Amino acid sequence: MNGAESLVASLTSAGVDMCFANPGTSEMHFLAALENPKMRSVLCLFEGVATGAADGWYRMKDAPACTLLHLGPGLANGLANIHNARRASSGIVNVVGDHASRHLTYDAPLTSDIEGLARPLSHWVRRVDSAKSVARDALAAVAQARRRPGRIATLILPGETSWGEANDPPSRFEAPAEPKAPAADLVEHIARILLSGEQSMIVLAGRSLRAEALELAGKLAAKTGCRLASQFFSSRTERGAGRVSIERIPYSVSPALQFLQGVKHIVTIETGEPIAFFAYPDQPSQLKPADCAIHSFVLPGEDSFRGLEMLVEAVGAGAARPNLQAASNRETPSGRLDPTSIAQAIAATLPEHAVLVDESLTTGRESFALTAGARPHDQLQNMGGSIGFSTPVAVGAALACPDRRIFCMVGDGSAMYTIQSLWTQAREGLNITTIVFANNSYKILKAEYANMGAGVIGPRSLSMIDIDRPRIDWVAMGKSMGCAAVRVEDASSLANALSNSVREPGPTLIEVAL
Amino acid sequence: MNGAESLVASLTSAGVDMCFANPGTSEMHFLAALENPKMRSVLCLFEGVATGAADGWYRMKDAPACTLLHLGPGLANGLANIHNARRASSGIVNVVGDHASRHLTYDAPLTSDIEGLARPLSHWVRRVDSAKSVARDALAAVAQARRRPGRIATLILPGETSWGEANDPPSRFEAPAEPKAPAADLVEHIARILLSGEQSMIVLAGRSLRAEALELAGKLAAKTGCRLASQFFSSRTERGAGRVSIERIPYSVSPALQFLQGVKHIVTIETGEPIAFFAYPDQPSQLKPADCAIHSFVLPGEDSFRGLEMLVEAVGAGAARPNLQAASNRETPSGRLDPTSIAQAIAATLPEHAVLVDESLTTGRESFALTAGARPHDQLQNMGGSIGFSTPVAVGAALACPDRRIFCMVGDGSAMYTIQSLWTQAREGLNITTIVFANNSYKILKAEYANMGAGVIGPRSLSMIDIDRPRIDWVAMGKSMGCAAVRVEDASSLANALSNSVREPGPTLIEVAL
Repeated sequence: MNGAESLVASLTSAGVDMCFANPGTSEMHFLAALENPKMRSVLCLFEGVATGAADGWYRMKDAPACTLLHLGPGLANGLANIHNARRASSGIVNVVGDHASRHLTYDAPLTSDIEGLARPLSHWVRRVDSAKSVARDALAAVAQARRRPGRIATLILPGETSWGEANDPPSRFEAPAEPKAPAADLVEHIARILLSGEQSMIVLAGRSLRAEALELAGKLAAKTGCRLASQFFSSRTERGAGRVSIERIPYSVSPALQFLQGVKHIVTIETGEPIAFFAYPDQPSQLKPADCAIHSFVLPGEDSFRGLEMLVEAVGAGAARPNLQAASNRETPSGRLDPTSIAQAIAATLPEHAVLVDESLTTGRESFALTAGARPHDQLQNMGGSIGFSTPVAVGAALACPDRRIFCMVGDGSAMYTIQSLWTQAREGLNITTIVFANNSYKILKAEYANMGAGVIGPRSLSMIDIDRPRIDWVAMGKSMGCAAVRVEDASSLANALSNSVREPGPTLIEVAL
Repeated sequence: MNGAESLVASLTSAGVDMCFANPGTSEMHFLAALENPKMRSVLCLFEGVATGAADGWYRMKDAPACTLLHLGPGLANGLANIHNARRASSGIVNVVGDHASRHLTYDAPLTSDIEGLARPLSHWVRRVDSAKSVARDALAAVAQARRRPGRIATLILPGETSWGEANDPPSRFEAPAEPKAPAADLVEHIARILLSGEQSMIVLAGRSLRAEALELAGKLAAKTGCRLASQFFSSRTERGAGRVSIERIPYSVSPALQFLQGVKHIVTIETGEPIAFFAYPDQPSQLKPADCAIHSFVLPGEDSFRGLEMLVEAVGAGAARPNLQAASNRETPSGRLDPTSIAQAIAATLPEHAVLVDESLTTGRESFALTAGARPHDQLQNMGGSIGFSTPVAVGAALACPDRRIFCMVGDGSAMYTIQSLWTQAREGLNITTIVFANNSYKILKAEYANMGAGVIGPRSLSMIDIDRPRIDWVAMGKSMGCAAVRVEDASSLANALSNSVREPGPTLIEVAL
């Protein structure tokens, strides 16, 4: 067994059995080792697709995949979606090949400081010393990625560690410790706050946005009158009709300040206090009122379900009946395409247990509330703010959940970043409906230009925000990579196209002409 | 004048008047400042296009452009082509926005360690302290980028430095010192080697591959019998009929060893000794024979033209007549498309003073020699080995040289990496002919698999190298982004398509079906 074979055997023995790959010459032995039938490998034509897919996989599996990347530049191409995954607490094991150690001294063209590139966005980086330590190092990487919150573990393997003779992999992977529950006295403290009669808000994130945890949060709200909210972006929310629906802290600073007005206590679960996404010249960074106290109840990676159970017990809410989301009107909309009719079309057609990957930016912002009463589904959002997030995440989610349809809502500007995802979607026959909001501009930036107080927008600035010359033909784009594709110009056509996409296996792209 | 305006005024005063941009919220004041008519800004839909375009610009202008990138992830997306530019000694000024300093403490979603991401591939990184120091810091960045060899200078501007009140820009940019010539005694030493009668080879790189320098090298060869060669990849070579043609050290290790057999002295100009591109288990890293001495004559960034002049004088080659490349047969080929007929079609149609951007990998490797006798042109190659190089570099070269046609030869696997380039090509009406070699595989990796001794290739490995399911429809891809596009299946159609592309202004994509 060589080092590369040892790596794959070790990863699969520790439960990592999906590899999103874009290999190069320095990874040829890993490629050979991928013949191991326990590991599934999926080819991506750009590394940002591979790392984003690993993020989507983790969110739906609660377990890491690995990526296979070609030296420093291959890792660099994957970094933006590693940033997004890190912010979502998604664990990933990145396997990065390097030149054989003896070759590094000659500074060949592809030589770079891989550790230096990996460190800013990895929680853990290790360069493997020899083929014999590959197994141990691979398990250490998996242990990192499987911690809660999930971590980014990057393993750098010089050539000789892949082709050299290795030991057999260690036979047993020791899973990381179970997450901690909050301390009893903290539970008592939070219970007193919720029962104080002062206006309180629980801000939920991470695993506390799963249906069963939300059910508990709903009991707390029913019993104590506290508000329930999420940050504007959440890694995975189980929502829809029959589930406990929560408020969403607005994206823009002024509405967010208003939203939080009067709140005296914010109790955080797997997140921190509400913060503005960007800094603006005349706006605060902190969104909470000046006299509002922040109470950190469950830290990221701790057991929020258990914490909520304890809190329900402490406030005596066990018998309380949470307010459940009613089913929305699911009539097919007609007429003009606008954020409202688009949201109605999605709410009408989203299949039960679908996964809604949301990188809709301006078009989708207003639609969030309108889809709350759709059939039960999971919503995945971008936690890191780097665009080009959704189409790769849809790939990973579809592979993790082959029986569920993925609706991927994406702005045209964002879609262009990692458009190579469509090819992998077609290749693997993934059940993804990509909904491109083609407003032919970085529309979000038009608002941000004003928010920033950058003055009246001039023609040159505007030309850096509009992407309408030339207009991208999304149907041609989809078809070029083997995706079925259709363009819609009104709301009922959109609803039809969405329904049709659900009936056919495999990917479809829908260009929503705005 | 605010900091952003000060930045643009400072850059343009120092001769940096082209900005390849993909801005975000944190760069809105820079966007506003780009109304300054002295700065031209070109929108790219992915940062790897912006950084690659800056590389192409530098190669044709011998002067840096700037990029405008959105925080850490935006920089990360541009790193692979920054790596390639760095390896080509192309100077670039990267302008990276960051959150306002007061916002960093709250760890907002887009916060990352920008310095950490910038450092591994930048020669110089500076975070601007205040709006008042923007002008000074911008000039310092330009001074770095304009040094020889060109350097990667990355300037990080927190929000308050862009919107705060600045000083007027300093009135005068002090250009870096002129490059040094080699010392007289080193010239004498090299002259003695060339005249020794032992087999010598001059390996040329950097500015020594410009026509006038090659003319001098040709005199040396004519007088002393030394061989002239380049590395396998060179940043910019002025070649074609009537110019001094040189040999090329082969890519693969065995042919390279054979090529260098018997050479007793290698004299390097703006480069180092020949090294294998990758490390292979049973092959050496160094390509030179064991008894061959390496003589470093001109270091990167020194004045190789002056060095060659001194050497010509020292060996008494002033009157020698260099061996000039004859014009090749320019008959239009017909029949099957293969590396030979493709090279013939390119040699037949390449217009005078064209720029040939070469990321042809397997298809183009054999064609290099066949295009040596084409009309005089510049050839730009990938010095860093990170694919996705050529289509962005073509953008930069076309903007730098609006009167010259760009032929961009690119493998399909490479083209997918930064395919967003086509949109900028269409938007700016650039005279670029993109020639996609559609062999539907990472064909280079099939050879590398064998070279690596990874054994007989299995079906799973093969499926990670073949990109034929689905086949990419390059005509649809080109048209989706506003590029004229055509598919050719035989050599005479290719020649026709190339000729047609030259007659029409603006970009064309030609899918070469292999």
